[in-house]
Amino acid sequence: MVENFSEWFHNIIETADIIDPRYPIKGMGVWLPYGFQIRKNFFKIVTDLMDKEHDETSFPLLIPEEELAKEGLHVKGFEDEVYWVTKGGQKDLNEKLALRPTSETAIYPMFSLWIRSHIDLPIKIYQKGSTFRYETKHTRPMIRVREITSFVESHTAHSSPEEAEEQIQTGIEIYKQIFDSLAVPYLISKRPEWDKFPGADYTMAFDTVFPDGKTLQIGTVHNLGQTFAKTFDITFENKDGQHEYVYQTCYGISDRVIASAIAIHGDKKGLVLPPAIAPVQVVIVPILFKKGAEEVLDKCNEIKDALSKDNVRVKIDDRDIRPGKKFFSIENKGIPLRIELGPRDLKANKIVVVRRDNGEKSELTIDDNLVSSIKDLLNDIHDNLYKKAWDKFNKSLKLVEDEKDIKESIKEGNITEFYWCGDTECGKEIGKISDEDFLGSSEDLDEDTDKVCVHCGKKAKHIASVAKTY
Amino acid sequence: MVENFSEWFHNIIETADIIDPRYPIKGMGVWLPYGFQIRKNFFKIVTDLMDKEHDETSFPLLIPEEELAKEGLHVKGFEDEVYWVTKGGQKDLNEKLALRPTSETAIYPMFSLWIRSHIDLPIKIYQKGSTFRYETKHTRPMIRVREITSFVESHTAHSSPEEAEEQIQTGIEIYKQIFDSLAVPYLISKRPEWDKFPGADYTMAFDTVFPDGKTLQIGTVHNLGQTFAKTFDITFENKDGQHEYVYQTCYGISDRVIASAIAIHGDKKGLVLPPAIAPVQVVIVPILFKKGAEEVLDKCNEIKDALSKDNVRVKIDDRDIRPGKKFFSIENKGIPLRIELGPRDLKANKIVVVRRDNGEKSELTIDDNLVSSIKDLLNDIHDNLYKKAWDKFNKSLKLVEDEKDIKESIKEGNITEFYWCGDTECGKEIGKISDEDFLGSSEDLDEDTDKVCVHCGKKAKHIASVAKTY
Repeated sequence: MVENFSEWFHNIIETADIIDPRYPIKGMGVWLPYGFQIRKNFFKIVTDLMDKEHDETSFPLLIPEEELAKEGLHVKGFEDEVYWVTKGGQKDLNEKLALRPTSETAIYPMFSLWIRSHIDLPIKIYQKGSTFRYETKHTRPMIRVREITSFVESHTAHSSPEEAEEQIQTGIEIYKQIFDSLAVPYLISKRPEWDKFPGADYTMAFDTVFPDGKTLQIGTVHNLGQTFAKTFDITFENKDGQHEYVYQTCYGISDRVIASAIAIHGDKKGLVLPPAIAPVQVVIVPILFKKGAEEVLDKCNEIKDALSKDNVRVKIDDRDIRPGKKFFSIENKGIPLRIELGPRDLKANKIVVVRRDNGEKSELTIDDNLVSSIKDLLNDIHDNLYKKAWDKFNKSLKLVEDEKDIKESIKEGNITEFYWCGDTECGKEIGKISDEDFLGSSEDLDEDTDKVCVHCGKKAKHIASVAKTY
Repeated sequence: MVENFSEWFHNIIETADIIDPRYPIKGMGVWLPYGFQIRKNFFKIVTDLMDKEHDETSFPLLIPEEELAKEGLHVKGFEDEVYWVTKGGQKDLNEKLALRPTSETAIYPMFSLWIRSHIDLPIKIYQKGSTFRYETKHTRPMIRVREITSFVESHTAHSSPEEAEEQIQTGIEIYKQIFDSLAVPYLISKRPEWDKFPGADYTMAFDTVFPDGKTLQIGTVHNLGQTFAKTFDITFENKDGQHEYVYQTCYGISDRVIASAIAIHGDKKGLVLPPAIAPVQVVIVPILFKKGAEEVLDKCNEIKDALSKDNVRVKIDDRDIRPGKKFFSIENKGIPLRIELGPRDLKANKIVVVRRDNGEKSELTIDDNLVSSIKDLLNDIHDNLYKKAWDKFNKSLKLVEDEKDIKESIKEGNITEFYWCGDTECGKEIGKISDEDFLGSSEDLDEDTDKVCVHCGKKAKHIASVAKTY
């Protein structure tokens, strides 16, 4: 679709007024007004879903070194990418403060104060805000950044491992709904032991695939077991009067979901925004001649008001520029639906509607059904984006039965699946052979399967995959 | 009203589930679920007003030392309170990065890239987020903190000084509306030369007064003139084809507005929230007996649904605890209106309503006017809080005509006003004599006034004030 994806992506986020990457710190950009509105709509979707299950809170951005260092595995996982505050004014601080890379070690000391008894459980909270990673790899706006400005992280504590396990499923379901709203397809994998979240029992991850064939991790859900509870002494008195450590989960998503929607749906003309996050869902372009201009504008306003009233985000584009230039910028900004209305249309009591997703032009009669017809079209646009994206995604999944075919399949741009016995050694070996990243296992096989591990030939336990990753 | 205000305030923000100050860094606290909802409602008020005039954006939280240091006066004003990031992972950074104390030096390098011509002007943007101050003074939750989590700052650039001056008025008007929404009274002063924002031409400031008689600065509006434009080289080609520096303003408010609403309206029983920011505006308490419980609950739900539909934030409190305990916690949380409904009320087709602001109990008939009657009551509550707060505030303003009376008036807990010639020397001297802070001038006098400066006896130009401050 787009020949040089990387160039296209960098270009579109600047020209469409999303992010200005020219801020004088590498890996940190400025959210421009249009981008900010997309982000705001994304947050609304996330918040509405999260609020059903969690309480929103806000924790400090700084974490004392002592807290961050308490969980050995956790700090080891992050020690190379933490920004440290060491000075306050002209003075050296007594204790270094970390810019949170993630907030487990900010939140769990407070859990330890809040939780006393089983009646305090479950606790389910979330927060949204910035986290920081001192990335040493090549940074890219929204994809690999040093300030993750739109990180939404949830943290839960439970009185039983079963309840924590259920929460993992809830987290996964919420994330599916978020990705579905943006028509972003995904593969869910259980990350292998050697690539799970530092400190977790296990990690479930969502990966999507970009037009250049590389996968991007867009969400993770972690079962933390009792590891952090033991480190931060988070105990509760259970119904039998005994003290027990809580069972915890955490999960997070970020700006990368927005980046994915932009990357996956966009085309040569620019953005193609899913209606759910489009700052403007419908733009009305009055086609004006000297004669009858007023009537046309009146009707445009009437339609605008009717759509607004029904919660459609709509605006009139009456900029005094050439229609060609106007349509070009409307397309570049990815506005899902364009309405054109001129004197001749008005006379015929019709409007012309043009879809951004497939360019289809059609006419609608101006009557009592107009608003619902336009809303139907917006739903169609979403469904079409969803179908197209999933079709393409599913085509990029390729199951190979011979280890020798893995490299070729990856070269073709596939997420390459294979049967795997589940052993760490085999997994790491397959990763090495493929020369790419081992995403994990996406499906468990029946015990009586006749499939065998592509590497060792023993009975397979999972379907797993490798892919080029960001 | 409250004997030991400081103790009361610390107590209420913890017991009412607003902020947990026990986070292991001094001056940084956790927004708890109820507090977070108050903050969210506050942000909604601010955002709705700001969006009419500005575009929302988001700039990085870190500022390179080189940028922060460019404006000499500005950096001097902040150098003792900036947190510095000096390490990334295990490495020392090449350049120190500041945790923004405010964002002029983050934003204006971008303005310099964005602005070329008069058609790019005006630019009016805002952002909300955390800023940081390494406070060496005694910290207090929400009042003097090291992470200001709810800072909303606006930045504008204009093609003429007149337009910038108009923007100052717009900023002041917006802030008045915000404070009015929360029924927080204020005095607007032009800060004296020696206390203006570092780098500004002049600073207009809003101060409110707390129950302990101390004033708190709750908002500032700055005319930056061309100082930063010259530092950051922000020029535009004017209509005559000449290059000119832009004229800038900036203004900011924070968590302190929420703290003020809590402090000013609260009483011995706890919070008294203005309806505009109350997470729950109406709580319905079903009074249940075995007989008729179902009918009562049905009616409660019916009333709840009708209120919800009309955008009233309402919930049913059916916790199985003693009524006394329930009422205590409802009052403590500051819920503006409590509805009680039992079988006898249902039979009489009435509900009992109890106002939090004045404790008044009354009955309302359950009919088609019920929702609008309840909304009227919420408006009355707002108006009453507003009137009470302003009455008290106005009483705390005292104009003295003799310099000797200043100290005594301050001792009585007043914001003490006096006539002032406008000279810096006199102003500083009056500040010294009063032993408190010089807030600035709140009113300009006519040229033919017969009032004289309380210090030097020359003709007065302003009414100015001193007060105990936070």
